[in-house]
Amino acid sequence: MPRLTSLSLVIAAVLAVTEASAQQPAVPEQMPFDVPYGPSITADRAAQVVQAVVAEARRPPRNWKLAIAVVDPNGDLVYFYRMDQTQHASNNIAIGKARTAARFRRPTQAFFDVMQTPAGAYVSTLDPTLVASPGGIPLVEGGRIIGAIGCSGAMGSQDHVACQAGANTVR
Amino acid sequence: MPRLTSLSLVIAAVLAVTEASAQQPAVPEQMPFDVPYGPSITADRAAQVVQAVVAEARRPPRNWKLAIAVVDPNGDLVYFYRMDQTQHASNNIAIGKARTAARFRRPTQAFFDVMQTPAGAYVSTLDPTLVASPGGIPLVEGGRIIGAIGCSGAMGSQDHVACQAGANTVR
Amino acid sequence: MPRLTSLSLVIAAVLAVTEASAQQPAVPEQMPFDVPYGPSITADRAAQVVQAVVAEARRPPRNWKLAIAVVDPNGDLVYFYRMDQTQHASNNIAIGKARTAARFRRPTQAFFDVMQTPAGAYVSTLDPTLVASPGGIPLVEGGRIIGAIGCSGAMGSQDHVACQAGANTVR
Amino acid sequence: MPRLTSLSLVIAAVLAVTEASAQQPAVPEQMPFDVPYGPSITADRAAQVVQAVVAEARRPPRNWKLAIAVVDPNGDLVYFYRMDQTQHASNNIAIGKARTAARFRRPTQAFFDVMQTPAGAYVSTLDPTLVASPGGIPLVEGGRIIGAIGCSGAMGSQDHVACQAGANTVR
Repeated sequence: MPRLTSLSLVIAAVLAVTEASAQQPAVPEQMPFDVPYGPSITADRAAQVVQAVVAEARRPPRNWKLAIAVVDPNGDLVYFYRMDQTQHASNNIAIGKARTAARFRRPTQAFFDVMQTPAGAYVSTLDPTLVASPGGIPLVEGGRIIGAIGCSGAMGSQDHVACQAGANTVR
Repeated sequence: MPRLTSLSLVIAAVLAVTEASAQQPAVPEQMPFDVPYGPSITADRAAQVVQAVVAEARRPPRNWKLAIAVVDPNGDLVYFYRMDQTQHASNNIAIGKARTAARFRRPTQAFFDVMQTPAGAYVSTLDPTLVASPGGIPLVEGGRIIGAIGCSGAMGSQDHVACQAGANTVR
Repeated sequence: MPRLTSLSLVIAAVLAVTEASAQQPAVPEQMPFDVPYGPSITADRAAQVVQAVVAEARRPPRNWKLAIAVVDPNGDLVYFYRMDQTQHASNNIAIGKARTAARFRRPTQAFFDVMQTPAGAYVSTLDPTLVASPGGIPLVEGGRIIGAIGCSGAMGSQDHVACQAGANTVR
Repeated sequence: MPRLTSLSLVIAAVLAVTEASAQQPAVPEQMPFDVPYGPSITADRAAQVVQAVVAEARRPPRNWKLAIAVVDPNGDLVYFYRMDQTQHASNNIAIGKARTAARFRRPTQAFFDVMQTPAGAYVSTLDPTLVASPGGIPLVEGGRIIGAIGCSGAMGSQDHVACQAGANTVR
């Protein structure tokens, strides 16, 4: 019984390690980490980004409950929206993902991927506010980072999908 | 029966939390992390839950010494009972487990299992108050989370067993 | 009328919080700090409350730049909106004011007033997250606290005025 | 108008300063601060102490809603009970009062009284966990401190009265 459990764990871990590359385009390549910072996203624009996330989260048969945060390039909160009945823990996680994506200028998926390997354990020592879970994405407009968005409440990859729908509204 | 349940929990938890299979709709059904929040458990009800935990902990030949915490759906403390001669460290752990179970709407066993693998190291970056050790369980009444219970002081699996006895008194 | 109300609030708050007149039953009636908690305000409702605050802040010749936070009865964030060009420090202050108003079930003006006197210095020892500045107001619907709103960015009394405009939309 | 307010503040402050000596026996004299520590209060005994507090809080026409904490001589939590509909902020305050009373071996009223004067502002620098508000009382049995009780939720002097009813059950 414990062995079966262990086996499941291993399988799950392997699946997890291979997930990003297998199911999604290689994010790091697409998003170079030296995109320059621009001025902050406005609050009204942030509200529109979040609206797109909420629509994505509600698309049937989905019924994801998400906390959604938009931060400025420094990681300070610009806009926050907690869908009703979202798990309470997601408040800080969404804000943390957005902050991480803005301050490190990369999707939080990157840190998640690194931490899937033992060699990546050091990531947790970099910054106590770093959240290494998918669902944080920089918002890039005209080649400049104007902020970032963070989503939490569903599974990490779902958080990422919903967040991406919001990020896609910024060009 | 408890073993089978336990195994299912482990597998579901690993799959769900490692993000390995975000597209597999089966996982949420096995371990629904989206149980809606209801109003807080009352203090007197919480006292009854704890009474059941204490009875379980004392059942011969057991002689577990536990700190036991009951929190509301947001993770704020409702009731706390430290059995005499419990290790002092267990105070914060019990409260942390209960808080984690309430705010993440799942047993802390789920996080413990994920962190058994290198791929699960990222869990420690999600929330500084997250306690990834068995012994935190949501309290669900009529399909709504009315709080959570956390136990600490024995081995993690024993904490879980004792806590479950308390959780079982809520339906 | 607003002035009279404001004065009554001040007097009631001072009397109540300084413990000067514990035996005077009149104080609770004037400022009932024991309004029961209800279920959390919804996100969409919170957005409407904030909209009213923003309109109030922009009413010419005003041009107040505010960070505005709405929290649930436990003080967890439901909605946040930072008007463009608001001072960065106001983010945490707005959230802190809302949290204080929800968790203490009273306007933060009450704590500000008490701390205007040397005798009120003790207030700063009550809770490290307490913000004793005007601009945090409970949101009461049908006699129950469904959350609170916090505003920061202008002068404290202006923050309060703007916040009150939002609170007035909840009955 | 502002002047009237200021006057009220002054009056309230004066009342507050004189409260302890005018309405209550001088606590410091009754409770020397060098009472030796004994073994910790048991959990069941703590539960009885809290029961007495709850009864006191409910005595008509009172209807105080209190968070009640009992700690051991080191200030670690032994028992906690939050009466339904207590303000959320009182959780940490009750625990803080109990901890302060145990670790400083004196009623928190003592710190409150000192902080009523400008010369007492230094108290807030002693220990970040010190709570200088009435309602924390050491529990002394046979001349030894076996713990402390802290109450929060009503006005400070009411918290003190309720707590004292609990402390009186320990001799």
